[in-house]
Amino acid sequence: MKTIWRNCQVATMQYAEYSVIEDAAIVTDLGKIEWIGAAADLPEHLNAKEIDLDGYWVTPGLIDCHTHSVFGGNRSVEFEQRLKGVSYETIAAQGGGIASTVRATRETSEIQLREIAIKRIKNLLNDGVTTLEIKSGYGLDLKNERKMLRVIRQISAMLPVTIKSTCLAAHALPIEYQYDSDAYIHFICESLLPQLAAEGLIDAVDAFCEYLAFSPAQVEKVFQAAQQLNLPVKIHAEQLSALHGSMLAAKYHALSADHLEYVTESDAEAMAKSGTVAVLLPGAFYFLRETKYPDITALQKHKVRIALSTDLNPGTSPALSLRLMMNMGSTLFRLTPEQTLAGVTIHAAHALGIEKTHGSLEVGKVADFVAWDIQHPSEITYWLGGDLDKRVIYQGQERSI
Amino acid sequence: MKTIWRNCQVATMQYAEYSVIEDAAIVTDLGKIEWIGAAADLPEHLNAKEIDLDGYWVTPGLIDCHTHSVFGGNRSVEFEQRLKGVSYETIAAQGGGIASTVRATRETSEIQLREIAIKRIKNLLNDGVTTLEIKSGYGLDLKNERKMLRVIRQISAMLPVTIKSTCLAAHALPIEYQYDSDAYIHFICESLLPQLAAEGLIDAVDAFCEYLAFSPAQVEKVFQAAQQLNLPVKIHAEQLSALHGSMLAAKYHALSADHLEYVTESDAEAMAKSGTVAVLLPGAFYFLRETKYPDITALQKHKVRIALSTDLNPGTSPALSLRLMMNMGSTLFRLTPEQTLAGVTIHAAHALGIEKTHGSLEVGKVADFVAWDIQHPSEITYWLGGDLDKRVIYQGQERSI
Ligand SMILES: [Zn+2]
Ligand SMILES: [Zn+2]
Repeated sequence: MKTIWRNCQVATMQYAEYSVIEDAAIVTDLGKIEWIGAAADLPEHLNAKEIDLDGYWVTPGLIDCHTHSVFGGNRSVEFEQRLKGVSYETIAAQGGGIASTVRATRETSEIQLREIAIKRIKNLLNDGVTTLEIKSGYGLDLKNERKMLRVIRQISAMLPVTIKSTCLAAHALPIEYQYDSDAYIHFICESLLPQLAAEGLIDAVDAFCEYLAFSPAQVEKVFQAAQQLNLPVKIHAEQLSALHGSMLAAKYHALSADHLEYVTESDAEAMAKSGTVAVLLPGAFYFLRETKYPDITALQKHKVRIALSTDLNPGTSPALSLRLMMNMGSTLFRLTPEQTLAGVTIHAAHALGIEKTHGSLEVGKVADFVAWDIQHPSEITYWLGGDLDKRVIYQGQERSI
Repeated sequence: MKTIWRNCQVATMQYAEYSVIEDAAIVTDLGKIEWIGAAADLPEHLNAKEIDLDGYWVTPGLIDCHTHSVFGGNRSVEFEQRLKGVSYETIAAQGGGIASTVRATRETSEIQLREIAIKRIKNLLNDGVTTLEIKSGYGLDLKNERKMLRVIRQISAMLPVTIKSTCLAAHALPIEYQYDSDAYIHFICESLLPQLAAEGLIDAVDAFCEYLAFSPAQVEKVFQAAQQLNLPVKIHAEQLSALHGSMLAAKYHALSADHLEYVTESDAEAMAKSGTVAVLLPGAFYFLRETKYPDITALQKHKVRIALSTDLNPGTSPALSLRLMMNMGSTLFRLTPEQTLAGVTIHAAHALGIEKTHGSLEVGKVADFVAWDIQHPSEITYWLGGDLDKRVIYQGQERSI
């Protein structure tokens, strides 16, 4: 049976703008938007259940397009140690840093890993997230990358949220390959990726291109392997230095290049040409106290889509709220609330390659939307922390988590 | 009947340190802590109900010691305008800024003001806040300051949280006194404060000492009037410039001096001598993108207690989470998680003059505490946004809001 959602204002985010419909109505059927417009223009004689949205503001469901939300342990004690003045070297010598998360993730069982990730992810859902990307990358061997990717698929079946899985085996060098990163890349390309892709566990392939991770040449090998497997690619690039990973990504028509504090104008140009989305991660920028701001002017000049995401991870962005990232997108990066909302809806949909079905409220798209108890959509970005009263509609059904 | 809370670890925050008791038990009776210690040392033959805390970490209830959480309207549209490049002058000419909040607060009925404030404050409670300070200061005339203070008292009766009310009539110059701030100060001292104090609405008196608000000489008049009424004082000082309001506050044995980005070492010395707490407000620092950091080294050198608070207000810190302020206290101000926890417990209690009864878990104090589903107390500060699973015990009873 159809549903008519009425008595609301809608920010459809069509054209990546609010594109407001006042006193709107939305007709959904079979999980999709069948009709949307001014209530006064509603087709007559619809055989439909009516739901009153109480004058709430409706936006597309939020999309968190870059998370590492499956991991074992956390790094709060390391966080405290660093603030007490313990050096990175000492922490590393104690087995801290990403190595500790890899160890904890390997040691955690599939079921346990799933349970703690679900608890974490419920925080994101509570903010109005209806689509989520999750990366592997703390397993770093076949068995444990598989475990992570399986957990991602299981969570997808267990929670009312659409989840895209990304294989980020090229995240860090595992201890088993400590002195031979080329051999690890070879293993990823020749063995790990084909195997896990054949098991249907991978929606996209990502790599961390940075002096403390993998070189552009190594990342290119990973991209070529992904291409062989017909998998789209993404990249962590220009976070701490300008290796032009984003330009390399553009060459491979990457869905997105993420972080980008050191992006250059020619990177931006290449990204614009290939339609590669810039995913900014203000939580990591904030948590690491970075001072180099991504060149948003260059990205905007070349009309690169700018998405925002939590980067939820235990080391550099233990961020449990996408709405907080929107506030940081405005406060730190000076995006307007309209741009931050586009950044977690339509632009984020592009970053996951699902823009034809998600990210804006248009006829034919999936009926994922949030009705917010606010006076203006800028409030979603404005309030710092806390929880805004809302109703979440996922695939045409009101969701409770 | 007594209650024994067991199977927990406790960070008592005695001596403003974690002061951990492992495998602890807490005995409460009539809303107070009757006994606390290692479970193994529990007195025998207690006639008490036992409650299992599931291995959770227990901390004192959080104290948000500086909020403006009662106000009409919000400033999200102004926030968006500013990010779209509209100048402060234009916004002021449109009646924006604090004037718009004063107008909206005056226009909102007592009942309505209470309802929206309660909704907002529930966010703070949800983070584990058991004591809260709320200031007036958007009424700026007798009728509307009274309305705000009455609303604060009403909320206190309606929600399971202890609330201290502070009269901040000297927050900004109301339009009625536009060209005569001395006359407004005279009105506050001679009429407003004595009247509202007589009505039992005021627990403390605050003033905004800044070049765009009131001068030290004007603030001193307010302090003298408060002294006449036997009311403790507080100050907003050194936020945007160094007027030494904090030193003035120390002279009047102020409970706290708040903001303090421009505090000097001699201010810190004076505060230490008078026991005046430094209340840092990282949400406002962040939201205003300030670059001048409070001199925490000087404050620590002179052993000034450092509290943290949301400063929840619509113009400069729309912060609905005290836990997020703890993260900012660490990330931006480099306090350790132990110091941020002290900043929202025992030091915040001192900032409200309730340190004898609140702020740490000791025999005889009020049984306000939070049991957190975490592995280590540093997690309270570490996670960015979201909600941590917890149980809140308020005056010896488990609270639901
Ligand atoms: Zn990442
Ligand atoms: Zn304030």
